[in-house]
Amino acid sequence: MRKHNLGAGPGVLPESALQKSAAAALDFNNIGMSILEISHRSKDFEQVLENTTSLVKELLGVPDNYSILFLQGGASTQFAMVPMNLLHTKAAYVDSGVWANKAIKEAKLFGEVNVVASSKDQNYSYIPKNYVIPTDCDYLHITSNNTIYGTQMSAFPTSPIPLICDMSSDIFSRPVDVSKFDLIYAGAQKNMGPAGVTLVIIKNDILKEVKRVVPTMMRYATHIEGGSMYNTPPVFSIYVCMATLEWLKSIGGVSAIEKINKQKAELFYNEVDTNPLFTGTCAVEDRSRMNACFLLKNPELDEEFLKQAKAHGIIGIKGHRSVGGFRASMYNAAPLESVKALTDLMKDFALKTA
Amino acid sequence: MRKHNLGAGPGVLPESALQKSAAAALDFNNIGMSILEISHRSKDFEQVLENTTSLVKELLGVPDNYSILFLQGGASTQFAMVPMNLLHTKAAYVDSGVWANKAIKEAKLFGEVNVVASSKDQNYSYIPKNYVIPTDCDYLHITSNNTIYGTQMSAFPTSPIPLICDMSSDIFSRPVDVSKFDLIYAGAQKNMGPAGVTLVIIKNDILKEVKRVVPTMMRYATHIEGGSMYNTPPVFSIYVCMATLEWLKSIGGVSAIEKINKQKAELFYNEVDTNPLFTGTCAVEDRSRMNACFLLKNPELDEEFLKQAKAHGIIGIKGHRSVGGFRASMYNAAPLESVKALTDLMKDFALKTA
Repeated sequence: MRKHNLGAGPGVLPESALQKSAAAALDFNNIGMSILEISHRSKDFEQVLENTTSLVKELLGVPDNYSILFLQGGASTQFAMVPMNLLHTKAAYVDSGVWANKAIKEAKLFGEVNVVASSKDQNYSYIPKNYVIPTDCDYLHITSNNTIYGTQMSAFPTSPIPLICDMSSDIFSRPVDVSKFDLIYAGAQKNMGPAGVTLVIIKNDILKEVKRVVPTMMRYATHIEGGSMYNTPPVFSIYVCMATLEWLKSIGGVSAIEKINKQKAELFYNEVDTNPLFTGTCAVEDRSRMNACFLLKNPELDEEFLKQAKAHGIIGIKGHRSVGGFRASMYNAAPLESVKALTDLMKDFALKTA
Repeated sequence: MRKHNLGAGPGVLPESALQKSAAAALDFNNIGMSILEISHRSKDFEQVLENTTSLVKELLGVPDNYSILFLQGGASTQFAMVPMNLLHTKAAYVDSGVWANKAIKEAKLFGEVNVVASSKDQNYSYIPKNYVIPTDCDYLHITSNNTIYGTQMSAFPTSPIPLICDMSSDIFSRPVDVSKFDLIYAGAQKNMGPAGVTLVIIKNDILKEVKRVVPTMMRYATHIEGGSMYNTPPVFSIYVCMATLEWLKSIGGVSAIEKINKQKAELFYNEVDTNPLFTGTCAVEDRSRMNACFLLKNPELDEEFLKQAKAHGIIGIKGHRSVGGFRASMYNAAPLESVKALTDLMKDFALKTA
């Protein structure tokens, strides 16, 4: 029986994608070979790469003047690639949590960093707003969803300078106007696929010559020119992304999933707000639809609640050590029933504990 | 029916590894979740990482003072990581082909490079030998097997300076005295697993402070300290490596596979040397047991031979454009029967063409 997987990532994937992936791992397209052992230069894989690229473009409405890249190394590698390729003198960053901080740390290796806003004062429990974006910076870097703290940008800043966004934990969860961004990156392992591949959506004209030495593999230009095939790409991880995005398309795309994600979030936050035992941890207006952080008002009950969750097949809800308590990650592929299993347990727990 | 997959990589994998991987992609260890959607911090995955590490150590006899890393970005990323972390003033490289050249190109970004030997004069058809290893260099970089040209080092140089080896296309194909090397790296997608993970075996005491700026993800120290879990590792790719190495262990390890690889290579090269239509492309003493390059003496027959190979289910033998003709890659998981299918076809082709 499938577990209610509400883990923060690598996260739950659609069953249809798992079934397709398992079948392809045995024999891909009935070619007598597994997708794990075919050449990345084969027509069979070229088709996978093309389809996956098309699905990204179609689902997010990516304009024609952007390239779609499938890279390795996770968002952590992007934290460095962004400044290595795009920071000429100074860059602006919004500090909305641990991951934003890691991005800032890497940028500081390569130039001056202007942290234009931070929510560190309240343990990142809200999204910084109403900051001034300096026009003398090469770009502004933001994080759309903060997995650890359960906050999410409901609106994006209008930026006078190139806008770069780490969307690792909420890409494909809602419609986004890609044309507002110059570069979007996302580790696949939340809403898009498995660990081992990172999506980069990059506006073709933002790359200028940089003075520093950049290794070939760390240059966006290498991967744009190579069509993500400069070297062997992570073949199977890209296949699983394709299967996951096919599922997303089949249920109606990002507008449809946004409605479902809203439903799940409303169901969950309504329970947190009405259940006497629990409380949320974030500013209400910044609550994430992807990762919901919550606490038992009496932390002595934490262990018992986790135990009962496990007994009900609810997995991955222990909170991150930076926040404590619990976190329910409600990624695209997490069904409403999994959230309902959790809210039912919360109700039941309140009744029995009262 | 399984094809005779003699492709250069990503290459053929053992059927048992494919079956385990497909099963784990549906439901891993009967936990009600796929390995594609479990946390890399879960006990289930920690066990996979531990097992895979132990198998690498056991199969290659890695001494205790080395770390085993599973990274992303392929050997192409290692071409840069090696000099970024280890080139302080000057490094020595042996130029044995395209991949060695790419490594040299990256090293030149970071310091002086002394190319101590090259076989470029004869299109890399032999392994450079009898070169002097300068003692004033930080390390000597070699490539154990040259996938494109079909040459392989049958012996490794005794180096007075740290020895670094790209073993991407022949690791685990034979016993190797790891203690002679300071760093070994290998993209997994030949003998070890699927595309998307790179093995690094690194001697713990070789890292000294470097003056240049190195991004966090490009520092070996980051991954040694993080136990390959500084950020989300390529979970599934590592699992497939584990399953592949379990297979290797089950058949007797690297000594046993070396015997089989010798058998396959003898069968193949004997055919090339006795068949009147074909000829090899490399110095006989440097012929690779992994990738055998060969030509039809009359290249007008190339197309017909490829057509017949395809009809016999033999896949991936078109030669690389740098050499032309054909290439039979006989990686660990390629069964003797696949090589026999090819040599039978060669015999038959000679009979019918005579």
